[in-house]
Amino acid sequence: MRALRVEAGALRLIDLPEPIPGPNEAVIRVALAGICGTDLEIVSGYMGFTGTPGHEFVGVVERAPDPAWAGRRVAGEINASCGSCALCREGMRRHCPRRTVLGILGRDGAFAERLVLPMANLHEVPPEVPDDLAVLIEPLAAAHEVLEQVRIAPGMATAVIGDGRLGQLCARAVQRAGAEPLLIGRHPAKLVLAGAVGIRTTDRPDDLPREFAVVVEATGSPTGFELAMKLVRPRGTIVLKSTYHGAAAIALAPVVIDEITVVGSRCGPFAPAIAHLASDARAFTPLITACYSLERAEEAFARASMSDAMKVLLAP
Amino acid sequence: MRALRVEAGALRLIDLPEPIPGPNEAVIRVALAGICGTDLEIVSGYMGFTGTPGHEFVGVVERAPDPAWAGRRVAGEINASCGSCALCREGMRRHCPRRTVLGILGRDGAFAERLVLPMANLHEVPPEVPDDLAVLIEPLAAAHEVLEQVRIAPGMATAVIGDGRLGQLCARAVQRAGAEPLLIGRHPAKLVLAGAVGIRTTDRPDDLPREFAVVVEATGSPTGFELAMKLVRPRGTIVLKSTYHGAAAIALAPVVIDEITVVGSRCGPFAPAIAHLASDARAFTPLITACYSLERAEEAFARASMSDAMKVLLAP
Repeated sequence: MRALRVEAGALRLIDLPEPIPGPNEAVIRVALAGICGTDLEIVSGYMGFTGTPGHEFVGVVERAPDPAWAGRRVAGEINASCGSCALCREGMRRHCPRRTVLGILGRDGAFAERLVLPMANLHEVPPEVPDDLAVLIEPLAAAHEVLEQVRIAPGMATAVIGDGRLGQLCARAVQRAGAEPLLIGRHPAKLVLAGAVGIRTTDRPDDLPREFAVVVEATGSPTGFELAMKLVRPRGTIVLKSTYHGAAAIALAPVVIDEITVVGSRCGPFAPAIAHLASDARAFTPLITACYSLERAEEAFARASMSDAMKVLLAP
Repeated sequence: MRALRVEAGALRLIDLPEPIPGPNEAVIRVALAGICGTDLEIVSGYMGFTGTPGHEFVGVVERAPDPAWAGRRVAGEINASCGSCALCREGMRRHCPRRTVLGILGRDGAFAERLVLPMANLHEVPPEVPDDLAVLIEPLAAAHEVLEQVRIAPGMATAVIGDGRLGQLCARAVQRAGAEPLLIGRHPAKLVLAGAVGIRTTDRPDDLPREFAVVVEATGSPTGFELAMKLVRPRGTIVLKSTYHGAAAIALAPVVIDEITVVGSRCGPFAPAIAHLASDARAFTPLITACYSLERAEEAFARASMSDAMKVLLAP
């Protein structure tokens, strides 16, 4: 099968043997896959990953231990856990220290014709969610993780920093929780996408009062934390969604003095993300920027790297 | 009255007019005051404070709006709030943006014969708590703040990093919550103080597994956060108690990937601290290192700066 490979920081399309499913794993034919910020970092050497990247996808089950699953359209959770360690047994399977992670860590990903994942990771996609939006299930689940970790109530002053892919999804998740988030970004064209679905936006955070109870940091840049600290009120919460390379210079004394809570937030629950997409597709359609064949992957990655790009898809 | 002053980074004993209480404020004759890490930083220029430092004290009410308080032995909360802003009205008086802070911000402190504080800040000290231990009420309340912010249950794997004043008190607060904290420090003589009251200790954190659900960082140094990140398990909590100058280089990606919660923690509730001291004085007596008169303040500060010093007191 055709698969996109990252080797020594270079990207190339090669022919690979078909993947062999382990026990309790399914083979999935990938219909569409999304390019995420992490993929861009992986291609530039992040995590020293060698293999097939890609972890946002929708596809059809070709072969499964339970034949009833064959032919079903699915999205998949990306962390494949051991199921038996202390963290797995406590319900923290996404943090299993022995996990592989689709397209990120020890497991070939979705930028290929087929992938394998444990059955436990699969979620059927309802017909209300078309393929292109189904690719957003994984990143939208990560956005919904914020709601699992922090109580966000209607009327609560919340801000999301970052008008990129992740920030847009986080703002929509917070909005769904009944709050009226303020999305803070630098790109008027991206802010318009959020404004169109009723999310308040600004590109002038310096004018804002320091009174947000919850600030979601989704800029992908060390400056995001600094801005979050300027906006969060005492005893407020900063949710960190950005992962970026290296260390940032951070003054921790204000975190202590103002008793700020900083919550790291990674992957999240698929069920509420699927329900969100199924009930409000209109809010997400404008986030799909373009779709490329695997052969045009270089072009797709270049497009995804451009500052105006939202979600760029690959069709294997 | 005699008062110790910090001016332009120098410490000197001078004669000051008696302090004049505002509405609803009491005049308190200071019996004993404690030197805290913040005082050492204030003397070296931290926070640009000019005035009388000192915020840990026990004293006797000399004059109060309600005469029934005259003659009572009291400790005092250090944040004097406006009572009318949004944060005060929501019960976050310790975070009032218009607050003064005893001996730290806009209000003369306890290294003097007398101080003034709002009546709302005073707590009567029960006879079971002798003067020297009553000086620990304020810092022990800060340690108990950890229990207000983080659920610590019996059997939960908890660590406290830092065998100094604050770390010792945090370990005792965590122990009181029913957990069995591990106190991590570098000074065998200080670790012995904790070991004597049944707290497990180690000076070899490199040998520890990464499985603590809660890690309290009380080292007063940027290296403490780094160690905390090595010890805390996925979805665990790091409580930051240290305030120190400047920025540290911190990699935030691991906070995100492991979904760590970082909680800043400052001042805390007096009532549980008083009850703790009243019921378990024996655990705290060894933490009092020495007592000096105000005239010997330079010597007292030098003693408090030594690595083996626990709490050093001043008797005005």
